[in-house]
Amino acid sequence: MKRQNVSDAVIRRLPRYYRYLDDLHTKGVVRISSSSLGGKMGITASQIRQDLSCFGEFGQQGYGYNVEELRAEIGHILGVDNNHHIIVVGAGNLGHALMQNFRFSDIGFKLDAAFDVSPALIGTEVAGVPVLDLAELERFASTQKPDVAVLTVPRSVAQSVADQLIVLGIRGFWNFTNVELSSAVEGVQFEDVHFSDSLLTLSYRIMER
Amino acid sequence: MKRQNVSDAVIRRLPRYYRYLDDLHTKGVVRISSSSLGGKMGITASQIRQDLSCFGEFGQQGYGYNVEELRAEIGHILGVDNNHHIIVVGAGNLGHALMQNFRFSDIGFKLDAAFDVSPALIGTEVAGVPVLDLAELERFASTQKPDVAVLTVPRSVAQSVADQLIVLGIRGFWNFTNVELSSAVEGVQFEDVHFSDSLLTLSYRIMER
Repeated sequence: MKRQNVSDAVIRRLPRYYRYLDDLHTKGVVRISSSSLGGKMGITASQIRQDLSCFGEFGQQGYGYNVEELRAEIGHILGVDNNHHIIVVGAGNLGHALMQNFRFSDIGFKLDAAFDVSPALIGTEVAGVPVLDLAELERFASTQKPDVAVLTVPRSVAQSVADQLIVLGIRGFWNFTNVELSSAVEGVQFEDVHFSDSLLTLSYRIMER
Repeated sequence: MKRQNVSDAVIRRLPRYYRYLDDLHTKGVVRISSSSLGGKMGITASQIRQDLSCFGEFGQQGYGYNVEELRAEIGHILGVDNNHHIIVVGAGNLGHALMQNFRFSDIGFKLDAAFDVSPALIGTEVAGVPVLDLAELERFASTQKPDVAVLTVPRSVAQSVADQLIVLGIRGFWNFTNVELSSAVEGVQFEDVHFSDSLLTLSYRIMER
């Protein structure tokens, strides 16, 4: 499927569609119109139709969408069936919490291992996933070929660890370091979770009231 | 300062300006032009000027911005000097990790306490902050008047706990529950950190390469 020039705003809305459809599917809803889906999500029916039209033809005029089908299609567009192999780099508090709480497999990621430099963490397991010595990463990557890394290392080493991971073939970073990372290698993607930006946005909106 | 109709996109860029200016300030940079700030941030100088014009007049034509002043002004717009009182509700893995790792005070939030229902957690301290019994929240709120809550409870109780907090005067939620919350009370703000949306966006962009 060709999908060039899909705007960032549309891409950011796709996971939200997926989340709503997944909920509806779980609740046993079989069919939904764009207007009732929009009503739930707080967007217009025409916005939904326009967003989805970037990726092909979905639903039937007057009949709405088949929830299970649309969920599967959007999941496919998002790559939930792509079986990405992901590693956690930095198994401190936050890395540990993500390993415990976040269900990577629900959205198609296989969490293979975590890496750290702390002797207290190396050799432990978190939620059944081994924490390995960062020094073993090169050997691990050569056989296991992880393609995505959760980066939860201290910000002082964020870029240097990222550089090392890029050399080992990592092409996607879920970046929690609060540092904006860059890559000399083309095609490497960074998805930043900037906690402080998020809380500052809330701070602004509280005052605006 | 009147600032109506500031778009969500501008609001979301403000913390990023703040972050860059804070870095520059730490590095001892005194003055910066909009074009070199834009160069660092990957946006145009005119975008910066346009964004800032929503809030007043900054910088001097031909002289650029005074880094310390602009940092302070944007910080003020974002409310870093507003001394919000924040509580963590749900001191499990993620709540605990945020308490350990996230420096609330750096962006003007005072973390007063955490609340949980688990006897194993109640009475403990995390990073010097006490974990209290959720049953004590009403009494606590009546004297301490927290205005913001980090919501890190299980998704099954997210909305009911939020409702309870709204009654006690909480007006801002930093929501990690992966549930979209709503409020019958006007003016309550929700800032969602949807981990799965974020990782799915990365999943999409890796495939797009």
